[in-house]
Amino acid sequence: MTKTEKKPTILITNDDGFHAAGLRKLISLMRKFGKVIVVAGEQSMSGMGHAITIKTPLRVKTLYKEADYEEYVCNGTPVDCVKLGEQVVIGGKPDLLVSGINHGSNASVNVIYSGTMAAVIEACIDGIPAIGFSLCDYSHNADFSHVDAWIEAVVSKVLQHGLEQGVCLNVNIPAYSTEPVKGIKVCRQANARWVEEFDSRQDPRGVDYHWLTGKFENSDLAEDTDQWALDHNYASLVPVHFDLTAYKAMESVSKWGL
Amino acid sequence: MTKTEKKPTILITNDDGFHAAGLRKLISLMRKFGKVIVVAGEQSMSGMGHAITIKTPLRVKTLYKEADYEEYVCNGTPVDCVKLGEQVVIGGKPDLLVSGINHGSNASVNVIYSGTMAAVIEACIDGIPAIGFSLCDYSHNADFSHVDAWIEAVVSKVLQHGLEQGVCLNVNIPAYSTEPVKGIKVCRQANARWVEEFDSRQDPRGVDYHWLTGKFENSDLAEDTDQWALDHNYASLVPVHFDLTAYKAMESVSKWGL
Repeated sequence: MTKTEKKPTILITNDDGFHAAGLRKLISLMRKFGKVIVVAGEQSMSGMGHAITIKTPLRVKTLYKEADYEEYVCNGTPVDCVKLGEQVVIGGKPDLLVSGINHGSNASVNVIYSGTMAAVIEACIDGIPAIGFSLCDYSHNADFSHVDAWIEAVVSKVLQHGLEQGVCLNVNIPAYSTEPVKGIKVCRQANARWVEEFDSRQDPRGVDYHWLTGKFENSDLAEDTDQWALDHNYASLVPVHFDLTAYKAMESVSKWGL
Repeated sequence: MTKTEKKPTILITNDDGFHAAGLRKLISLMRKFGKVIVVAGEQSMSGMGHAITIKTPLRVKTLYKEADYEEYVCNGTPVDCVKLGEQVVIGGKPDLLVSGINHGSNASVNVIYSGTMAAVIEACIDGIPAIGFSLCDYSHNADFSHVDAWIEAVVSKVLQHGLEQGVCLNVNIPAYSTEPVKGIKVCRQANARWVEEFDSRQDPRGVDYHWLTGKFENSDLAEDTDQWALDHNYASLVPVHFDLTAYKAMESVSKWGL
């Protein structure tokens, strides 16, 4: 970057909250690329999907501010963080939104439940190039030591080429292992699902309660899916859009004669 | 239906909570079609998107039970209601899931934020035929007197033809007016968006807080969209799927040489 080029403004959020190691890692990587503004939740918002806060007011606190680096926390969801980042903190659009690094996979159908990817999709709706990064390791002290090159490569390419209108990226990286990650594959979302099993118990008053648990089941074993890539120690990159229309089904439904 | 045919089991939920007039209307319509099991939230969960509850346990209360009709409330999100309905209440899959009738439009990009449609998509992931119904009127005492024929027509067709695997329906009905609804159009999701404007205030201690507000902006004026149909007094029916892969973008991204 020459001195005359304007540094890009990069908005960062996540759904594990501002304490998360994955967020700290992403901040340190993004500071090499531009001016970084962090707007993260005070609390973990994992599993919040595309939730927004409409019944309670939102509050934003400044945690830290220096040249080219600002950090804020709020009481909202990941999608709220993007809206607040644009409207209240920046007062305009950042050049890039990155979300994560999520502690846990957002590959396959996980994208639907993911607060990390909801933030990315929200930015995409607003016309901002946006990327979600997730590590396939749910532990809060996950090892992020192998992710730098992959994240830097994707961010460089997006800053260089941009992303077409209405498209954002879902990038997942295998958990740390002694075998190095083999590369990045451009994939489609695997058609897998969670099979729920509630862990049902009784409280001391004898009233039933249920913890949501589940098992990930993948019957979509094709080699062009994100889940295949991750299972074979590749990082996966899925271009994602927010048009949920099932175009192929329009014809058959039209024939119903409604 | 002849006496020997088994009545279909219909699971009903919504995101406005079990009090909502739209839910009551949908229950009364669905009881003509089969055995009805309602699992709704104690509270309104509007704007919850595809949120799930993982940090607190879920509780289900039986409100009412008779032959062919059961009603339960829970402390969860619309997606939780579907999971609890299947796993805890029914102990298997219903023949149909209907969600709504939402007080307010879920056309266009609203599908992304909608708890009503999140419940539908969750059922679809689980392989259950599923339909979301919404009325383009946000008021809690909205007039539902004109919706019967449209909802009954769609439900009849789905029970008759089924839905292909991985496809569910997003049906929106115009608000009541003196001009009758002209018909149902099979549409694609309009590419519109909400432009946020936070209503920022100070509390009595002088601390800023922000209410999320917004204005719906539609620049996608083509006649094949749900928004066009609704604006012209047609009900809209969009077949929806949960594969977010932007297939068209895979080629250009693959050329980056990552």
